Amino acid sequence: MGKHTVITISRQYGSGGRAIGQKLAEQLGIPFYDNELITLAAKASGFGEDLFKNAEQSGAGSLLYSMSVYGTMGGFFDLPVSDKVFLAQSEVIRNVAQEGPCVIVGRCADYVLKGKVDAINVFIHSDMEHRVKRVIEEYGRPAEKAQEAIAKTDKRRATYYNYYSGMKFGQAVNYHLSIHSDAIGIDATVELIKNFYLAKAAKENA
Amino acid sequence: MGKHTVITISRQYGSGGRAIGQKLAEQLGIPFYDNELITLAAKASGFGEDLFKNAEQSGAGSLLYSMSVYGTMGGFFDLPVSDKVFLAQSEVIRNVAQEGPCVIVGRCADYVLKGKVDAINVFIHSDMEHRVKRVIEEYGRPAEKAQEAIAKTDKRRATYYNYYSGMKFGQAVNYHLSIHSDAIGIDATVELIKNFYLAKAAKENA
Repeated sequence: MGKHTVITISRQYGSGGRAIGQKLAEQLGIPFYDNELITLAAKASGFGEDLFKNAEQSGAGSLLYSMSVYGTMGGFFDLPVSDKVFLAQSEVIRNVAQEGPCVIVGRCADYVLKGKVDAINVFIHSDMEHRVKRVIEEYGRPAEKAQEAIAKTDKRRATYYNYYSGMKFGQAVNYHLSIHSDAIGIDATVELIKNFYLAKAAKENA
Repeated sequence: MGKHTVITISRQYGSGGRAIGQKLAEQLGIPFYDNELITLAAKASGFGEDLFKNAEQSGAGSLLYSMSVYGTMGGFFDLPVSDKVFLAQSEVIRNVAQEGPCVIVGRCADYVLKGKVDAINVFIHSDMEHRVKRVIEEYGRPAEKAQEAIAKTDKRRATYYNYYSGMKFGQAVNYHLSIHSDAIGIDATVELIKNFYLAKAAKENA
């Protein structure tokens, strides 16, 4: 295990998890990986960015769709394309995590880094009312489709996580810290995670 | 809803959840309810304390045992004894929660208070290694039985919670805050919950 600590963030759609991760990384002065990571992974593996973006949006649930669109990439490994994408992304996650402390949002980073790098795994969630509001006002979704988009995205993320990790998405014991973001707000949530990060470092240096 | 906030704590056995609740209540200068609550409930309902203690230890899983020992209490409601005990405990929980801010550990208090009192619901968990250590050193369990006691107590608490609340024990979304206590230690965990409590009050008063 490295001596530095990486923070991974899993989140419900509309919980503000990505913004929290970004602010946290800024405040701690460490790198933040989200869409950037897709680009890095794409370049490292030689796959096109489009393929990665599509895999992320469709998730493991639509493996057949990905395969029908992109073919089976004969000549590469005999794995389904979405699994190949996952492995390439995992490689990138491990590489950036080994370089030093950082914040990584999504992509089963908690599972991917298990036993490889010291990590604080965080889960961000909220209530439907606040999530709908955020999805409309900040993500620009049409109001009449907000609730449906939340349900679909949550389901897709859970399916993706459960498929690749073999664990259950959203179980408190899988994370060091799970927070209802809108009970205290985005900034206070960032502060709380930062305090956890500092308290862990203080305990280990004691 | 009352204007004050109650803190409920659900916990894995050996996670230090009870000690965390007690320290938190001390630091906030508010009442703490745990075994006390059983006594209060027993007195309020006219049931004997022994019955309550037994119900707590055996849980919903051994309803038949409770009934065989205590009979069906004919003349009281037609409910099984353990359900009657749960209802009497719930009544006490609601009463103390309505009086003012307090910390309540266990007994599905999060579920019992839902929609009745403003609450912060906390879940405390840890890894097996730290829990075994705590169960041996602090709770005085024999080392060779520690792991078995943890598995049994976890299962009993989950069964009890799932039976009475109709929800799943340990799901992050059921709590405002879930913490791996031994990642940062008991005192830092108390501090974190206190900060969450203060941040929520600050947000609501903003």
